[in-house]
Amino acid sequence: MKVQGFIRFFALLRMIINNTIMIKTDILIIGAGPTGLFAVFEAGLLKLKCHILDALPQPGGQLSELYPKKPIYDIPGFPEVLAGDLVDGLMEQIKQFEPGFTLGERAETVEKQEDGTFIVTSNKGTKFHAPVIAIAGGLGSFEPRKPLIEDIEFYEDKGVKYFIKNPEKFRDKRVVIAGGGDSALDWSIFLANVASEVTLIHRRNEFRGALDSVEKVQELKSAGKIKLITPAEVIGINGAEHVESLDIEENGAHRKIECDYFIPLFGLTPKLGPIGDWGLEIEKNAIKVNNALDYQTNIPGIFAIGDVNTYPGKLKLILCGFHEATLMCQAAYGIINPGKKYVLKYTTVSGVDGFDGTRKEAPKAVVKAIV
Amino acid sequence: MKVQGFIRFFALLRMIINNTIMIKTDILIIGAGPTGLFAVFEAGLLKLKCHILDALPQPGGQLSELYPKKPIYDIPGFPEVLAGDLVDGLMEQIKQFEPGFTLGERAETVEKQEDGTFIVTSNKGTKFHAPVIAIAGGLGSFEPRKPLIEDIEFYEDKGVKYFIKNPEKFRDKRVVIAGGGDSALDWSIFLANVASEVTLIHRRNEFRGALDSVEKVQELKSAGKIKLITPAEVIGINGAEHVESLDIEENGAHRKIECDYFIPLFGLTPKLGPIGDWGLEIEKNAIKVNNALDYQTNIPGIFAIGDVNTYPGKLKLILCGFHEATLMCQAAYGIINPGKKYVLKYTTVSGVDGFDGTRKEAPKAVVKAIV
Repeated sequence: MKVQGFIRFFALLRMIINNTIMIKTDILIIGAGPTGLFAVFEAGLLKLKCHILDALPQPGGQLSELYPKKPIYDIPGFPEVLAGDLVDGLMEQIKQFEPGFTLGERAETVEKQEDGTFIVTSNKGTKFHAPVIAIAGGLGSFEPRKPLIEDIEFYEDKGVKYFIKNPEKFRDKRVVIAGGGDSALDWSIFLANVASEVTLIHRRNEFRGALDSVEKVQELKSAGKIKLITPAEVIGINGAEHVESLDIEENGAHRKIECDYFIPLFGLTPKLGPIGDWGLEIEKNAIKVNNALDYQTNIPGIFAIGDVNTYPGKLKLILCGFHEATLMCQAAYGIINPGKKYVLKYTTVSGVDGFDGTRKEAPKAVVKAIV
Repeated sequence: MKVQGFIRFFALLRMIINNTIMIKTDILIIGAGPTGLFAVFEAGLLKLKCHILDALPQPGGQLSELYPKKPIYDIPGFPEVLAGDLVDGLMEQIKQFEPGFTLGERAETVEKQEDGTFIVTSNKGTKFHAPVIAIAGGLGSFEPRKPLIEDIEFYEDKGVKYFIKNPEKFRDKRVVIAGGGDSALDWSIFLANVASEVTLIHRRNEFRGALDSVEKVQELKSAGKIKLITPAEVIGINGAEHVESLDIEENGAHRKIECDYFIPLFGLTPKLGPIGDWGLEIEKNAIKVNNALDYQTNIPGIFAIGDVNTYPGKLKLILCGFHEATLMCQAAYGIINPGKKYVLKYTTVSGVDGFDGTRKEAPKAVVKAIV
């Protein structure tokens, strides 16, 4: 009895540890762009839980990161929709299926288990365990273009930031932003009210961005709320344990400015990244899938949907990703529930049962006598 | 010279006649449901003109005819959208591409021309000439369920109506509607303010429909604006050249009521119809297509998209039709412009150029110095 008690105790302990360090789900979706988000909805209709992993700090992929305020014209049913509004609509559409999100981490390795399931590990060591993986990675994970400054890697967790996850981090700090595009303009505007000092450095006098952003920066500069140094470049970083100051080259002259954070915003380049080494068949930097059936890759159980995949006649359009996500979910159902049959139907007829206990359905017809 | 002049004259004459009796377009879309409508948009991006043919009196297919006020939950980006609103959105989205519509006619025959193009003829004799046909027929063309009344076919253009195309036709007329569902209720309500007399006949006392429709009919009946005869059935039609009266069986007794129009609304059944005889490969009442490439049927140049098609893993969902329509248009471009290459791109980048001269595009970035 005592031995059995011990065994049970250790089994329980192992279960707790596993659950703590391992995120378990039905479908691990890599990529929080529109295709990955919509997959949560279709999976939910089939009673499958999803967890989404994305390298960017917020859901929406390119739509949120690159052009949230730009219109898209080819989403069916929307004559025009701002990219950010489409993301909001998708987030609202999937919320009753309670997807998990791990943001700001990149999928690094995959290990196939004996039972056919997968364990994926992120660049920060988080582990995900799922029977099905759906790679919805868009054009790849967005990697920041880094300025060519000596030792910049050393400062990456010590005051150098390529993304702004939590603007509160910069409250009452001295911030230097470098760049000449929308991100540099918009974050300068936003942080002007948060940081104690915002300096914007650009190698030209001209900025390229939305007219109202350029005008707002001009206004804040005139009001003394943003310092502008142009044309100039950051050429060195100083500090023992953290960024303390930057070396600037301005019109051929060198000078030093003190600051707490350096945020170079020189744009993002999409890279397939470590997924490229998973043994998936790759063609033209995209993952080959079986479009004649279910958008599965050459590794059974791993699917690729949306812009990240390729097949004969492939079009890199958001609406195609929606379709691919849906057929992927139906196939995932078959993998997770072998032998069972359940086919996606018109939601007008079936309604939608959320994992949070909500139910949406069309108003029922009544049968009533008229007298 | 005289002979050549004559030849030219006759060639011109033939051209004029052809253009008068023949509707020419790039893609003839059979079916005005959501898939067919959206195809117009994608075709328009590729500079292809579309003409839509549908047996129903209005665009939207099932969405308009069967459940315009019911919600759909699985259109990507819309947490909930009424079917009728989705149709409105699609009509707005395609309007700059000026699609032609021929409504209330059914595609009957197809003839392949020597040059590979097609001539389709409708049940009313209208001819359509196009190099590409896209069948977006949904579950089929909706045929009314007809009551089993002798000689009813004789009266079909003489006072018997299964669809209401133009309600003004019934102004100040005596109308008898038969049926117990939403259509019968809703048209009784609508025509109560148009016709001089509305009689609603149903074989049961109980009606089945939206609660507010049932209540409204109750109200109009109490106010004397709708006459109700239940439980009863129409068993005969009388009139020399037009409906003049109906024979009614009510509780086993027979009686006659005078009227100008008889509108039996007993629902619609989808039928593949004459398209089933076009030589297309059919499986389970649906048209087989090559889903590994472009949703083309076994007849080159004829595509099938949306619920009307079948392939391994097919799901009958609106969002799948959108994707299929898009890949079809890209393939149609290749057929219509052999050797040319133009691939659908992000509309945020390319903008949308309407055939009506409009242009939609994302606001341009400015390049501006901040001083």
